[in-house]
Amino acid sequence: MPIRNIAIGAPQEATHPDTLRSALAEFISTFIFVFAGSGSGIAYNKLTDDGAATPAGLISASIAHAFALFVAVSISANISGGHVNPAVTFGLFVGGNISFLRGVIYIIAQLLGSIVASLLLAFVTGLAVPAFGLSAGVGVGNALVLEIVMTFGLVYTVYATAVDPKKGSLGTIAPIAIGFIVGANILLGGAFDGASMNPAVSFGPAVVSWSWSNHWIYWVGPLVGGGIAGLIYEVVFIGSQTHEQLPTTDY
Amino acid sequence: MPIRNIAIGAPQEATHPDTLRSALAEFISTFIFVFAGSGSGIAYNKLTDDGAATPAGLISASIAHAFALFVAVSISANISGGHVNPAVTFGLFVGGNISFLRGVIYIIAQLLGSIVASLLLAFVTGLAVPAFGLSAGVGVGNALVLEIVMTFGLVYTVYATAVDPKKGSLGTIAPIAIGFIVGANILLGGAFDGASMNPAVSFGPAVVSWSWSNHWIYWVGPLVGGGIAGLIYEVVFIGSQTHEQLPTTDY
Amino acid sequence: MPIRNIAIGAPQEATHPDTLRSALAEFISTFIFVFAGSGSGIAYNKLTDDGAATPAGLISASIAHAFALFVAVSISANISGGHVNPAVTFGLFVGGNISFLRGVIYIIAQLLGSIVASLLLAFVTGLAVPAFGLSAGVGVGNALVLEIVMTFGLVYTVYATAVDPKKGSLGTIAPIAIGFIVGANILLGGAFDGASMNPAVSFGPAVVSWSWSNHWIYWVGPLVGGGIAGLIYEVVFIGSQTHEQLPTTDY
Amino acid sequence: MPIRNIAIGAPQEATHPDTLRSALAEFISTFIFVFAGSGSGIAYNKLTDDGAATPAGLISASIAHAFALFVAVSISANISGGHVNPAVTFGLFVGGNISFLRGVIYIIAQLLGSIVASLLLAFVTGLAVPAFGLSAGVGVGNALVLEIVMTFGLVYTVYATAVDPKKGSLGTIAPIAIGFIVGANILLGGAFDGASMNPAVSFGPAVVSWSWSNHWIYWVGPLVGGGIAGLIYEVVFIGSQTHEQLPTTDY
Repeated sequence: MPIRNIAIGAPQEATHPDTLRSALAEFISTFIFVFAGSGSGIAYNKLTDDGAATPAGLISASIAHAFALFVAVSISANISGGHVNPAVTFGLFVGGNISFLRGVIYIIAQLLGSIVASLLLAFVTGLAVPAFGLSAGVGVGNALVLEIVMTFGLVYTVYATAVDPKKGSLGTIAPIAIGFIVGANILLGGAFDGASMNPAVSFGPAVVSWSWSNHWIYWVGPLVGGGIAGLIYEVVFIGSQTHEQLPTTDY
Repeated sequence: MPIRNIAIGAPQEATHPDTLRSALAEFISTFIFVFAGSGSGIAYNKLTDDGAATPAGLISASIAHAFALFVAVSISANISGGHVNPAVTFGLFVGGNISFLRGVIYIIAQLLGSIVASLLLAFVTGLAVPAFGLSAGVGVGNALVLEIVMTFGLVYTVYATAVDPKKGSLGTIAPIAIGFIVGANILLGGAFDGASMNPAVSFGPAVVSWSWSNHWIYWVGPLVGGGIAGLIYEVVFIGSQTHEQLPTTDY
Repeated sequence: MPIRNIAIGAPQEATHPDTLRSALAEFISTFIFVFAGSGSGIAYNKLTDDGAATPAGLISASIAHAFALFVAVSISANISGGHVNPAVTFGLFVGGNISFLRGVIYIIAQLLGSIVASLLLAFVTGLAVPAFGLSAGVGVGNALVLEIVMTFGLVYTVYATAVDPKKGSLGTIAPIAIGFIVGANILLGGAFDGASMNPAVSFGPAVVSWSWSNHWIYWVGPLVGGGIAGLIYEVVFIGSQTHEQLPTTDY
Repeated sequence: MPIRNIAIGAPQEATHPDTLRSALAEFISTFIFVFAGSGSGIAYNKLTDDGAATPAGLISASIAHAFALFVAVSISANISGGHVNPAVTFGLFVGGNISFLRGVIYIIAQLLGSIVASLLLAFVTGLAVPAFGLSAGVGVGNALVLEIVMTFGLVYTVYATAVDPKKGSLGTIAPIAIGFIVGANILLGGAFDGASMNPAVSFGPAVVSWSWSNHWIYWVGPLVGGGIAGLIYEVVFIGSQTHEQLPTTDY
């Protein structure tokens, strides 16, 4: 398996100005993404008096997340690589495109961004920040596979449009593709398990509402799906041909 | 008619690593597309208790397919050419842009991707994967012409934005255009025959739900429409001017 | 006023292969645009049993027209310049960017494309193709100014993103901008006069349904708005600086 | 803090043809943006007989503003820099990317564009142009923080995709990102305070409807949020590295 050099980040990496700047970019991007995304759910609850999910509610969530993730990836793309998602960071780590220490710092920044966004949402709306959970009739196994498959598609998209050195001019529209695959999947998964595909997105609301029921699904599912995508794309589509050039997300 | 050299694929082509890699890319792209697209229909059925189609339902289907097809084309564009649709493969074959054997392999991969997506959808949702069919009051002839016309527009778009050597910088946004013409057509055709424009998209759900009523329409319509688009675009707009350069989908 | 050379097309221009090819491209683009756009209105009428307009209906019309016009402009951009609209052709003529005869041929092709699309819609749906008209409480003067202002925005967008030699990399996303300004305006104008901004879009349904009430508004409004946009943009923003380079739509 | 040279505009700057041309571009862009954006709200009120906000209404407002702002930024990007918003102009001033006098002229042009759009909307629709205000249960402090946070995201996006010299090919899709972050935020903020993020957008309707209740929030919030974004992005992400090159919005 053509794994490239995964440098276990040296201790000083954590204080390197560029790493801290990247972490701040991940923090701000995840903050902006969760603020609009989870916020759209709170707005739906306000307008419907906590009514049941409807197709219009799913469309609203889809557009809010698609647009906001596209922007969140764009604004950090040239600084940190635009991960905005621990599953993306993990998928890039599995494929050898980010070091362990740098990955850990990114994930901490993403989680903090989501927590701060959730806290601010609770303040500005005065309403509950809804945690992710399973709809009636959805089992743990179903939701787990659903998160795995949807996140596989997301991280595969990151690889094909932003990491692959053969991406060509598609790199220009990569952030749109990354945002829109999440928007598309929400129109499916939103009716079953909330369609997270991103542990950070689930973590902030869980902390603020302190509800951890089935929370592990939103970590295991995305990390497994993202890891599989990273492995497959690296081995099959990047592979040995481009072994010398160290690809990283680049737009 | 300036048809370029259509190599009837030599037997070894099927095992050429690049052909297999392209087939895998088509499989994954079609899988991701059908998973989100057909999945959005299952989500609609869940949220409305199998209610009748409404404008909101059509909008949901439109956005899910537009966003997911854009992504599906993007992620395979530089590997297989991003067909994700037997009608596109056939339209490119008619115009002399893919060999017969390679085209057959692509279509098999697309069909398998749709079947696997439908099977997984049945598992994660626990609900029926709805097959395509005609709405009340829609005749076979109407649906057939509708599929022909809509798929003509789709494959014409593939030619103009991705195949034509004169496409220029439009190649950068070609996957968006390809996804969005399907999204636009669904807002029309979704109310009449489900708006498939893609035999693979109809085939997977038909296999899993084992319902074949009028299924042939979703093969004949798209293949005829795609073939006509390929012929017209090649003869009129690519023609002899660019006879020497062998255009293929290229972004 | 720095008007560039407007060649009154010589008689042979009409049979020049390039002119005929451009006319065919305009015909097909307008056909695809009207088929999806007006078709989405018929689908709405079918799903709601000719119910009154709702916000969901406006959203459906907005997305269908935005997506389809973006595609229609894309697929003819490098052949004919991607007008797809007599008001755009007229606005380009006023600014000296297309000759009189070529403009007339384009407009005829656009009108034919809309008529054929409307006829096919009547066949495949078996339903009425709705003509444009004024909503209750909307006066002729209001609708006329509305069409003028909305089309001004559309043709100004064509100039700024596709004609202006200073457009730079914005040319890459010009077709999206052109489609989406129409989508945005429909969310306003759709509730008042149907939001045409395009005489061809109104003409085909008027012919097929043979309803001509207030039809002149959908010619005068767009042509006046498009003409004003062409004049202002040419004089103020292109002006003498770039007098030598003959800009045409170029992506 | 690496603030670059902020030239307090010399008196003659105001009459420099380029400054006037830029002001006209800002006027027209803001006019087109407000006409479609605020107009979509009037259309919603007409279709629902001034009904309460619903998720469909929020989706309509989101799409109208996202599409129209994307276009408004595109069409003035290469002339004035595509601000279309006093908070963007102020955020660029804080970061040292526009002079004081030029900024004032831009803001006046934006405010005039919004007033003229609101007056025309009142005429063509014959209905009230709704001013921004707080929904039931939303306090002044909540709305103020909401506007600060949302506008921070918007101006940060402007900096990352259009101002930052490291933006690379992302500059091509910058106007889409700028429009879509507003669309995403409306799906949150629209249910609480109307989600302005732009003093010009609130000012025109306030003038025409002469309702100034809590109007100051729509100035203070966006200016504070935009200023913070400009400071942070300049200091942390542009900083001293690129001190020599004078970045301005450039697509």
